[in-house]
Amino acid sequence: MSESVENRQIYQVDLGARSYDIHIEAGCLNHIGGALNKLFNSSTRCMVVSNVTVAPLYLARVRKSLEEAGWQVSECILPDGERYKTIDSFNTIMDALMQARLSRNEPVIALGGGVVGDMTGFSASCYRRGIPFIQIPTTVLAQVDSSVGGKTAINHPHGKNMIGAFYQPKLVWIDPDVLQTLAQREIKAGIAEAIKYGLIRDASFFDWMHSNIAAALKLEPAVISTMIHACCQHKAEVVMQDETEQGVRALLNLGHTFGHAIESMTRYTTYLHGEAVALGTLLAVRLSEQCGYAPAGTEKKVAACYKQLGLPLHIPDFDASQWLDAMGHDKKNIGSQIRYILLHKIGDGFVAGSIEPHAIHALIDSYHAG
Amino acid sequence: MSESVENRQIYQVDLGARSYDIHIEAGCLNHIGGALNKLFNSSTRCMVVSNVTVAPLYLARVRKSLEEAGWQVSECILPDGERYKTIDSFNTIMDALMQARLSRNEPVIALGGGVVGDMTGFSASCYRRGIPFIQIPTTVLAQVDSSVGGKTAINHPHGKNMIGAFYQPKLVWIDPDVLQTLAQREIKAGIAEAIKYGLIRDASFFDWMHSNIAAALKLEPAVISTMIHACCQHKAEVVMQDETEQGVRALLNLGHTFGHAIESMTRYTTYLHGEAVALGTLLAVRLSEQCGYAPAGTEKKVAACYKQLGLPLHIPDFDASQWLDAMGHDKKNIGSQIRYILLHKIGDGFVAGSIEPHAIHALIDSYHAG
Repeated sequence: MSESVENRQIYQVDLGARSYDIHIEAGCLNHIGGALNKLFNSSTRCMVVSNVTVAPLYLARVRKSLEEAGWQVSECILPDGERYKTIDSFNTIMDALMQARLSRNEPVIALGGGVVGDMTGFSASCYRRGIPFIQIPTTVLAQVDSSVGGKTAINHPHGKNMIGAFYQPKLVWIDPDVLQTLAQREIKAGIAEAIKYGLIRDASFFDWMHSNIAAALKLEPAVISTMIHACCQHKAEVVMQDETEQGVRALLNLGHTFGHAIESMTRYTTYLHGEAVALGTLLAVRLSEQCGYAPAGTEKKVAACYKQLGLPLHIPDFDASQWLDAMGHDKKNIGSQIRYILLHKIGDGFVAGSIEPHAIHALIDSYHAG
Repeated sequence: MSESVENRQIYQVDLGARSYDIHIEAGCLNHIGGALNKLFNSSTRCMVVSNVTVAPLYLARVRKSLEEAGWQVSECILPDGERYKTIDSFNTIMDALMQARLSRNEPVIALGGGVVGDMTGFSASCYRRGIPFIQIPTTVLAQVDSSVGGKTAINHPHGKNMIGAFYQPKLVWIDPDVLQTLAQREIKAGIAEAIKYGLIRDASFFDWMHSNIAAALKLEPAVISTMIHACCQHKAEVVMQDETEQGVRALLNLGHTFGHAIESMTRYTTYLHGEAVALGTLLAVRLSEQCGYAPAGTEKKVAACYKQLGLPLHIPDFDASQWLDAMGHDKKNIGSQIRYILLHKIGDGFVAGSIEPHAIHALIDSYHAG
């Protein structure tokens, strides 16, 4: 499943006809053109979708590599931020694809973080009923999580990621060097998503992350590289087991039911996705303790890790009915039930199907009381 | 592949995990509730999407059957017509699905013709990254063609069906009795699509259709039933061979490259889809003759059949550059080439990859001269 040559690491996500490589290599941004030529018989037209923050930093390098490899490159530059992950941005991408007259076998390339990747992937899945797409993730969060696995979406005004598709990329091209230009806040939010893999399936990785947070925050190459490798391997393993989230993949949503509610209640303006998910994870871990699944002290251990990371740890003040309402629209419901991902212990997550609303009331009350 | 009990016929479209039945039976509209109960473990919520023409005729019967089977039914009623097959209607369906809080395993039901089916299927493919959907086609065109095979889409202002997905229904539920309320013009346009299967893959079916047009126009049950059965079987066979149109499925697009251009150039206001495709088919057959693929007289034979059907046969007056421009946006291009479906003879279609623009100029000129 993996090949390692010096500082280059390649994982194959094996999904039959939808298989693809995750290529991780410092400096590889400059070589995307050659990589595309290996994937496509002929270099013709392609489109790069990016945003106003990332494009000035990296689009010229991507374009140069593509053009040198013979590609005709058009571009679509969106505003930056989760609040633009909308049907309007989707329409903007569609108009650009129509304008560029991309045909069925010509690729679109997502150059950016999770928002750009999700919107570009969903657009690629719909345009002409599906064209190839390539992920070039430029944030920690996208490199450790969202660029792999084919979950694509836009938000509906009443719920996050409610409009989307399972649509796999043809290649994930990860250059850890591009993280150098990230704001500290973005780095922290991304590291929080990396810690998630430790919480749900790998206690020793949680401990390793906890011990290496300072180095990760400074983007020390060896630590960042190990972190990305480990996360991509975890993500690939889970996606290969359960591509469309019928079972085990749901564990990756630890913290997301609460986290999406936080994002929705604060209208995507207050928290980064990774920050909201970290807060949601604290709630899920406390709920795990309150329901008697996880041993006492689990929340404290997770909170200590997040505190060292420097994440905001204050749970916003909404009452329980607001929480339930916001979560009622979460897309991971089955029937009228809300599914929660909880922990038996650190490293052992599970799907809890039968949490009653009063447990959520008690959970929220316990925060207001504290 | 097929089971026949008295006047009930069931074909299985075998696509592995995406397999489903096509159920054809006069009067079956009143039994959709029971059919859904066989498909789903528990009857919970569902939504019916229809339009202002079909809903007053058939929604009450569908709702009654569903409610008697224990389903909680919400509805979304759209305006009628190809010009409403837009992102706005898609948003209307999404809002209704959010409003009804349908969850991942609750189905949406398309009750209507090709436009309703295409939009509903695409919406089902996107909502929560995919929920089950059921086709109840109510036009000849939808019963013989568009409800089977999982092609779903909406139009972009610059091209038909440019935004969509390959997304299979869980069931196609065909009641030929509902055709009784169709306008003659709709019946003719649908029969034209049925004739298509004869042209591309079954010369004897073409002859049979030609001989039975008068009876088909009168909706004589035996003829209509045979026609629907034959078409569903052809469609199912083609889709099983090539679900996502990498090869043989493209033959089903006979007349569509020209036909879509006609619809686009006339802004979806002048021709029904089946009418435009019939005109496009005449152009494709003439092109087949002009390029030396099909024997002289083929166009004449097809035109005679269409004439007996009472279709409009006048090719609209646009110049060749307008045609090429309109077809340049057609989604079936590969690279910068336009793919045409042509005939070697009646019953034998093929994909012609290398038609030069001058051949299209000559084709259009030959009509203007005539």
